[in-house]
Amino acid sequence: MSVTPAPHIDGQRLWSSLMDMARIGPSPNGGSRRLALSDEDIAGRRQLLTWTDALKCEWRTDQAGNLFIRRAGRDDSLPPIGIGSHLDTQPLGGRFDGILGLLAGLEIFRTLDEAGITTQRPLELIVWTNEEGSRFAPAMGGSGVYSGRLSLEAFRNARDRSDMSLGEALDHSGFKGSLTRDDLPLGAYLELHIEQGPVLERKALPIGVVSGVQGLRWYDIEFTGDSAHAGPTPMSYRHDPLLAATAFIEAMRETVLADVEGMSRLTVGDFQVAEPSRNVIPGKVLLNVDVRHTDEARLAELDGLLRDHVAAAAEREGITARVEELWHMPVTRFDTTLVDDLSAAARAHGLDPFTMMSGAGHDAVNLSYVTPTAMLFIPCREGISHNEREYAEPEHCAIATQVLCDAVLRAASRP
Amino acid sequence: MSVTPAPHIDGQRLWSSLMDMARIGPSPNGGSRRLALSDEDIAGRRQLLTWTDALKCEWRTDQAGNLFIRRAGRDDSLPPIGIGSHLDTQPLGGRFDGILGLLAGLEIFRTLDEAGITTQRPLELIVWTNEEGSRFAPAMGGSGVYSGRLSLEAFRNARDRSDMSLGEALDHSGFKGSLTRDDLPLGAYLELHIEQGPVLERKALPIGVVSGVQGLRWYDIEFTGDSAHAGPTPMSYRHDPLLAATAFIEAMRETVLADVEGMSRLTVGDFQVAEPSRNVIPGKVLLNVDVRHTDEARLAELDGLLRDHVAAAAEREGITARVEELWHMPVTRFDTTLVDDLSAAARAHGLDPFTMMSGAGHDAVNLSYVTPTAMLFIPCREGISHNEREYAEPEHCAIATQVLCDAVLRAASRP
Repeated sequence: MSVTPAPHIDGQRLWSSLMDMARIGPSPNGGSRRLALSDEDIAGRRQLLTWTDALKCEWRTDQAGNLFIRRAGRDDSLPPIGIGSHLDTQPLGGRFDGILGLLAGLEIFRTLDEAGITTQRPLELIVWTNEEGSRFAPAMGGSGVYSGRLSLEAFRNARDRSDMSLGEALDHSGFKGSLTRDDLPLGAYLELHIEQGPVLERKALPIGVVSGVQGLRWYDIEFTGDSAHAGPTPMSYRHDPLLAATAFIEAMRETVLADVEGMSRLTVGDFQVAEPSRNVIPGKVLLNVDVRHTDEARLAELDGLLRDHVAAAAEREGITARVEELWHMPVTRFDTTLVDDLSAAARAHGLDPFTMMSGAGHDAVNLSYVTPTAMLFIPCREGISHNEREYAEPEHCAIATQVLCDAVLRAASRP
Repeated sequence: MSVTPAPHIDGQRLWSSLMDMARIGPSPNGGSRRLALSDEDIAGRRQLLTWTDALKCEWRTDQAGNLFIRRAGRDDSLPPIGIGSHLDTQPLGGRFDGILGLLAGLEIFRTLDEAGITTQRPLELIVWTNEEGSRFAPAMGGSGVYSGRLSLEAFRNARDRSDMSLGEALDHSGFKGSLTRDDLPLGAYLELHIEQGPVLERKALPIGVVSGVQGLRWYDIEFTGDSAHAGPTPMSYRHDPLLAATAFIEAMRETVLADVEGMSRLTVGDFQVAEPSRNVIPGKVLLNVDVRHTDEARLAELDGLLRDHVAAAAEREGITARVEELWHMPVTRFDTTLVDDLSAAARAHGLDPFTMMSGAGHDAVNLSYVTPTAMLFIPCREGISHNEREYAEPEHCAIATQVLCDAVLRAASRP
């Protein structure tokens, strides 16, 4: 396999593009507000196309409005290497989440143009529609439709707060196409993203090679006891669902912390007391629980232990409990060849090819079901994302784009 | 001390009065709805006065609208023995909470009339205004003003949901008076009430002699950590205030259950997560905590332990916590002579003079600050109160009224 020698990307130019894009839909405190298919999101796409038009790239859209911007290869009959992410943001979002992955791709296109390099396979810079899901649920919709994991109908029927459907918004966006994955096959897919967590920053690492995405299981857990007045009811007469809930949480915490590898995660995002009153023993308590692991067998184990802990906690208080699993996203394993490509590229630049699992979902999860996929992470300050304060260092953006460029060249040369 | 031989009260007549009163302001499912100073509450008072007018009793009201219905004694210069409670109810309240205490007094008046008994001291049947506090907060307002523990101004300024003040409602009720405690002194005060808890029913006891009211301390406890995304944040990097809250609750539960006498009580009536989201580690959690004990020193100990547990839980999670005490109602000890009177009367009727502390507040708590006071409880079904399903057995109402009658005669004979 012959690998084209890697040209140097321009970190300054990449940063300028990021800051230029951030001027479209600026949010009050220095972040970005480009809700999916809003005027700002459309303007962001137009800006990107202005830049890629200058590189003589052609673009197409599929039925979900996903935007495919093509850089021709030496053999255009080969399925292209995709480089993608999203331009839409949270209502008060940051300037890097998604955007970095696309502008890194733009920077790679520009760098290859300057170096006069034409890759064997074509490249596709891909803007996925509605990744955030904050205007239209669910998230990762465009890549969901592309990969066949979300129906076009469900995607189009999602409605925003003003009751406009995604379908209507798409029809008016100028980006509605009729193509499907059959028309737009990929040979591989790579995505650069900010970590949205604290690990790389704490480890003082500029990049992380992402080998997969942890699996998660979401639960609603309801404990039902007997409501009664606080004063006249001795402790031994009570059937307090709140105390069952705290017993369950403490036991589940113990289980998760007992995982010495630290890959088990437990989050109780909400703890609701039905008809709360300070001096009334609650009659019902509802927990929203999120359990994650990087290993599917261990995630299944955690599911069993969670159910055991709920039962034991309910028994302790002499009450009933109900566990409802709302969602199970299995562990995603990325393509080992692409992970190796990214690791080799990192090593070639003297970087530790630290391998990690993503804690957040990404379009790459959907892509991994239909084409070899991998991701690259860079640190974001304090792990903060989905927030106007989101920040990534220019040098991290640059070095990761360089590593991505090298890996893209490697993948694009593969027969 | 000479004690007039006790005549027999008429349990059937008492029950009829209870059912007649329940026809005034009936609630949809067989309970009562007589909000303080509402038309229904006023009609209830008028009904009671119709009954006592037939007994040739005179009545007066004080500045808080408390209604004093007097049965003359042999020596009207002596401070009378008060028998009281309230006629107002919760919005969907029961037929016994408060009402029983007054109709028991009415039955005693009727019984004494039939037996041709005039007590040494006069008797006062007292209807306290706004005991429930559900239309106008705070509760126990009328007895609060009488006892000087609540200012008349604060009492009158309380407003209902339609923004009417209690003062306005009182001025239009026909029960506004100008008298104060100076004009209406009491020599002692006795109150019969349903327990509003499960203890007597579980012990299969028809009555309980109440020797005091447990003290309580109310707290708002706030745990503040770092909000972060559930997926990308390893457990060891988290500062989760929800896990501190559950650690605190479990530790406080252990402390309370370690009290072998079972007099310590802990209720967490609300557990609020600020800006809850299923896959976000909470940034802040607020607990509403109610701690009670029948012994003031032990209550102080519990306060210290609560603060220790909060600090330890916050430390475990590496977060901050704040404890705010909202209310401290010290333990009330009733008058031992009156408690002995009730116990002796119970024994005289072959009953176990089971002595207990009240878990709920009553007008008697306010009265205990200004005159010797005690209470008598009867069971209520399943301990349920403040509910249309509230129920007390006719035979328990009757036997307790008999015991109360005997104790009243004993107290009224005391020089």
